[in-house]
Amino acid sequence: MRVYQVEGAFGLENLKLAKRDMPEPGPGQVVVKMGAASLNFRDLMMVKGLYNPRQPLPLVPLSDGAGEIVAAGAGVTRVAVGDRVMGLFVQRWLDGPFSPEGRASTLGGPLDGMLAEYQVLEADGVVKTPAHLSDAEAACLPCAPLTAWNALFAQGNLQPGQRVLLQGTGGVSISALQLAKAAGAHVIITSSSDEKLERARRMGADQTLNYKETPDWGKAVLKMTGGFGVDHVVEVGGAETLGHSMTAARFGGSVHMIGVLAGVMTKLPVTSILMKHLRIQGIFVGSRAMFEAMNRALTVHNIHPVVDQQVPFEEAPEAFHLLARGGHFGKVVVSF
Amino acid sequence: MRVYQVEGAFGLENLKLAKRDMPEPGPGQVVVKMGAASLNFRDLMMVKGLYNPRQPLPLVPLSDGAGEIVAAGAGVTRVAVGDRVMGLFVQRWLDGPFSPEGRASTLGGPLDGMLAEYQVLEADGVVKTPAHLSDAEAACLPCAPLTAWNALFAQGNLQPGQRVLLQGTGGVSISALQLAKAAGAHVIITSSSDEKLERARRMGADQTLNYKETPDWGKAVLKMTGGFGVDHVVEVGGAETLGHSMTAARFGGSVHMIGVLAGVMTKLPVTSILMKHLRIQGIFVGSRAMFEAMNRALTVHNIHPVVDQQVPFEEAPEAFHLLARGGHFGKVVVSF
Amino acid sequence: MRVYQVEGAFGLENLKLAKRDMPEPGPGQVVVKMGAASLNFRDLMMVKGLYNPRQPLPLVPLSDGAGEIVAAGAGVTRVAVGDRVMGLFVQRWLDGPFSPEGRASTLGGPLDGMLAEYQVLEADGVVKTPAHLSDAEAACLPCAPLTAWNALFAQGNLQPGQRVLLQGTGGVSISALQLAKAAGAHVIITSSSDEKLERARRMGADQTLNYKETPDWGKAVLKMTGGFGVDHVVEVGGAETLGHSMTAARFGGSVHMIGVLAGVMTKLPVTSILMKHLRIQGIFVGSRAMFEAMNRALTVHNIHPVVDQQVPFEEAPEAFHLLARGGHFGKVVVSF
Amino acid sequence: MRVYQVEGAFGLENLKLAKRDMPEPGPGQVVVKMGAASLNFRDLMMVKGLYNPRQPLPLVPLSDGAGEIVAAGAGVTRVAVGDRVMGLFVQRWLDGPFSPEGRASTLGGPLDGMLAEYQVLEADGVVKTPAHLSDAEAACLPCAPLTAWNALFAQGNLQPGQRVLLQGTGGVSISALQLAKAAGAHVIITSSSDEKLERARRMGADQTLNYKETPDWGKAVLKMTGGFGVDHVVEVGGAETLGHSMTAARFGGSVHMIGVLAGVMTKLPVTSILMKHLRIQGIFVGSRAMFEAMNRALTVHNIHPVVDQQVPFEEAPEAFHLLARGGHFGKVVVSF
Repeated sequence: MRVYQVEGAFGLENLKLAKRDMPEPGPGQVVVKMGAASLNFRDLMMVKGLYNPRQPLPLVPLSDGAGEIVAAGAGVTRVAVGDRVMGLFVQRWLDGPFSPEGRASTLGGPLDGMLAEYQVLEADGVVKTPAHLSDAEAACLPCAPLTAWNALFAQGNLQPGQRVLLQGTGGVSISALQLAKAAGAHVIITSSSDEKLERARRMGADQTLNYKETPDWGKAVLKMTGGFGVDHVVEVGGAETLGHSMTAARFGGSVHMIGVLAGVMTKLPVTSILMKHLRIQGIFVGSRAMFEAMNRALTVHNIHPVVDQQVPFEEAPEAFHLLARGGHFGKVVVSF
Repeated sequence: MRVYQVEGAFGLENLKLAKRDMPEPGPGQVVVKMGAASLNFRDLMMVKGLYNPRQPLPLVPLSDGAGEIVAAGAGVTRVAVGDRVMGLFVQRWLDGPFSPEGRASTLGGPLDGMLAEYQVLEADGVVKTPAHLSDAEAACLPCAPLTAWNALFAQGNLQPGQRVLLQGTGGVSISALQLAKAAGAHVIITSSSDEKLERARRMGADQTLNYKETPDWGKAVLKMTGGFGVDHVVEVGGAETLGHSMTAARFGGSVHMIGVLAGVMTKLPVTSILMKHLRIQGIFVGSRAMFEAMNRALTVHNIHPVVDQQVPFEEAPEAFHLLARGGHFGKVVVSF
Repeated sequence: MRVYQVEGAFGLENLKLAKRDMPEPGPGQVVVKMGAASLNFRDLMMVKGLYNPRQPLPLVPLSDGAGEIVAAGAGVTRVAVGDRVMGLFVQRWLDGPFSPEGRASTLGGPLDGMLAEYQVLEADGVVKTPAHLSDAEAACLPCAPLTAWNALFAQGNLQPGQRVLLQGTGGVSISALQLAKAAGAHVIITSSSDEKLERARRMGADQTLNYKETPDWGKAVLKMTGGFGVDHVVEVGGAETLGHSMTAARFGGSVHMIGVLAGVMTKLPVTSILMKHLRIQGIFVGSRAMFEAMNRALTVHNIHPVVDQQVPFEEAPEAFHLLARGGHFGKVVVSF
Repeated sequence: MRVYQVEGAFGLENLKLAKRDMPEPGPGQVVVKMGAASLNFRDLMMVKGLYNPRQPLPLVPLSDGAGEIVAAGAGVTRVAVGDRVMGLFVQRWLDGPFSPEGRASTLGGPLDGMLAEYQVLEADGVVKTPAHLSDAEAACLPCAPLTAWNALFAQGNLQPGQRVLLQGTGGVSISALQLAKAAGAHVIITSSSDEKLERARRMGADQTLNYKETPDWGKAVLKMTGGFGVDHVVEVGGAETLGHSMTAARFGGSVHMIGVLAGVMTKLPVTSILMKHLRIQGIFVGSRAMFEAMNRALTVHNIHPVVDQQVPFEEAPEAFHLLARGGHFGKVVVSF
């Protein structure tokens, strides 16, 4: 069977098609025939060696994928051959709090990921695909929407009528938009593109802000809320945007940190954290229990992840270039 | 100014129009010119002497009302003359847990209620009326919707995709339907009337059940959920229905007890509570903090309480007869 | 290897010593050489056929046991040969909420229990024994203390300075006394024996009450708290005592239902649940995550479960008679 | 009556004894005859003009104080003349989340503080003094212990057996030590003085670390916990110490930010927040409801705040010099 793997050295130019033996399921494992996989910014950084330079090679990239179980090992009862499933990004985070063991069990590095025609996974590490979703749509769920769900619901306990601030129109923000609107929140979203803001409005965003036109957007959002501030910020920008996010948050509000976009060190207005009684909450995707709770919400609301473009498996490297160029709205998907 | 009061003895026939002096606001108090008041089943029981036979008379009934502040006493800064406000049913429950002090401070008994042209209240005991609501609509909020909010959100932490079971089409259940749908839940509702079930469906109910046709409705609901059970029951029937509600609930689910309809003592399947790890949660309307949180949700969703009928102040006793006859869908309102 | 099993029909007289093959661990399983097992009231009911008359026989009884891993199957990494471990009563409740799957996976019925020289368990279904405990002590942990922990901490979020009411001096109540005092709570305990109350005082109980002398003990406890009421009741009596427990609870307090002692149906003062905004919370022992959290607390405080009597394996039926006669303070243990 | 006030310009040299009229209670207010007041680092910064350079002068400093009610205004029912009370630092934070209104209502700036023989306060803004405490001890409670309580219990939901890391031996850390031990936690404390560490051990600290000898103390603490990390850090150092605190925290742990000691801007390892799923929680003292909950715990455990030194009112400026010189263990108190 065929996989793409980063060979020899990091870099998109080293992402090569390769042949591997058909995987066999061990006790408690299943083999999934992949139907689709999707890309996250983390995957791009991983392939380039920017996420974890000590990652051993070769590595099959991609954290997100969906398909069908075609073989099950001894003792597997949770799922069965023929089930449509998605991989759990953190293979060893079933429920409860995150752990170092979970951190070491993520797909697409350190473990081999989803850009393979067949992938062997723990039976505990897959989640059934909601019936209303295609594989291409399901392949978008394990990282971006689950991250948004963890932030807004598992940590944030979002309630109807609360205000949520989203940054940009990448996968996490668009998922958060869909989920927050389904939960009855008031959503404010930012972008540098009026066209994308218009599209976000059509998806339900209540207020929008072009941060290019309004560089001091933290204060602007505070003003847009009548000075009250937002209950939740889904912070994807990291070091560059955290200060603005804290300005936009209400007293006692939460800033959910999920981004790796804007560097790893920053100046932080420490005093504001305590003077406004803020919570800065780190979010690392989510657990299987959160994933299954999210799927119930997606089903009740008939929510479909936004697939921007689909690229056939044979042209998978092009998907990385698409992501690198930006400009997408929603997710870039590889179809098998 | 005119009020209705129960004089001499309990009974609807003793609900009489009377004249009282125009009230003056003491320090920290406001006078509200009532625009509308609404009826709850508790009010009917109160007037008949069934709720609290030791309630001193005369008593101005009604727990729910809305109007405009026309006078404010010394030291009032929270609200001002001209503000449109609603009364807080539990005048001394601002935030945090319920208390005996709160229990003794409810409008429409033991304290005089809202069936008066003017009412003096603590400035702390009013809540601003959302701009999108008329006084008739606002007069429906302080009891039924707040009870539903407390159950589903303050206690229940309802999340999108969870299942909610509602009983009948009275004020609390219809409010819970509106709020649960706004929050992205899957709603199952029961009634003895197919016509009312049809109306509930038009308001968003996902599944309906006629409990007259299906007397063993607890099991039926369990089956309707694929055997999983509902996450939340808003239990309004009390002693008669609790067993069914517990059957319908999922393992680890919650039954929110709010009803006073079906008597005060019952046989209880104690073992099921622990074998299914259920939570039976008593709900007594709610606090001001919950009220204000609910109002934000009503505003974001442009939710209007369902007013079934409006009766002019001059014919207020007829409103009690309407409620007693049943058959309403939503609330009966008295307009001033 | 030797086991005791209920053979042919229910009844203590049918609890017979038998020989079984030495168990082999399947994939993901371990074999535990039992060092000690302890008895719960449930075990007595189970053997008599009162807990679940449809339980297939033969059945090896006992839910609680501790020992050492002597063999591990393929793929076991969580624990290793030589580890001292305890069995998890609900074998399939690792974390998160309780489930029907968990309900069907309990030791000592429906699954074979711990009154066996060797027992095979899922590697996921054991918990490491704290180093400061003997096997006899460890064998007391999986049911009674974990039930108390779940009630007070997992559900009850007990905070220092809160008041806890405990009923009697059985295994759950004495565990709850130890844990609640370790957590800084004020503990009130009841018994029909002044001698046991004195012993509870020496273990840290702050107030005691002889319910034989004071049959209306709910009101008496309310008075002992200055009319405020207790924050938590660990309710072990069930139908007979629930009314008193609700009287003793504060407004907004919790009654944790764990008992199966006093029948399964009762009259319930439904109105009090809502008028006092009470939470009646069913408790079914607890999850592995709770067990591990509890063990950290036991270790920090050097808490040892109270072993009342130890009976050698050869005389195990006598342990059931000891439990049936009552009069114990703490746990009855079988030593291998 | 006499007060100390900062006159004309900031600076300890401008803290002058002055005469003011005896205050009269307005409606809903009380007059407290001060028995003692205590100092916090914030007070020193305030007097020097470093906390809020725009604070209008004259200002009576000090946030913490206790005494007796000697007069009550119209409508006061919550407390009465003769009650021993403490001031609530955030006068308008009774319950629920923090707010801008609360932020503007703190004693010792912007409002006049406790270094006055008599002080007028809202009746809602005082809390009854636990009977086991002297005024000097009670005067220590409103800021430092309440901050520790808010962090560990209101936000942190500390459970027995969890690990808590405390920094230094100032007022907040020593309060946190007392409260965390009362709640059954395992406490690790740092200091640059072996003598103070020894004293902390005598108060119950389980592990200690001299950060002068071990500058890389974050990693050292992680190692002291077997690599698991601490559940809670009470972070008083701010910008300088946050990185170490995050290193010491477990996956999913909390860092409670309360300090203003070490500047207001810092480099922050943003990635660690999300990779370890950390919560950085700002803490601004606490609400009245938290204060009352804490008092119950102090009473059950007979906890007395640690008073390092008492200075008579006539020599109050010396108390500021004592604080500035450091070296204290616990609190510096002014006695009236």
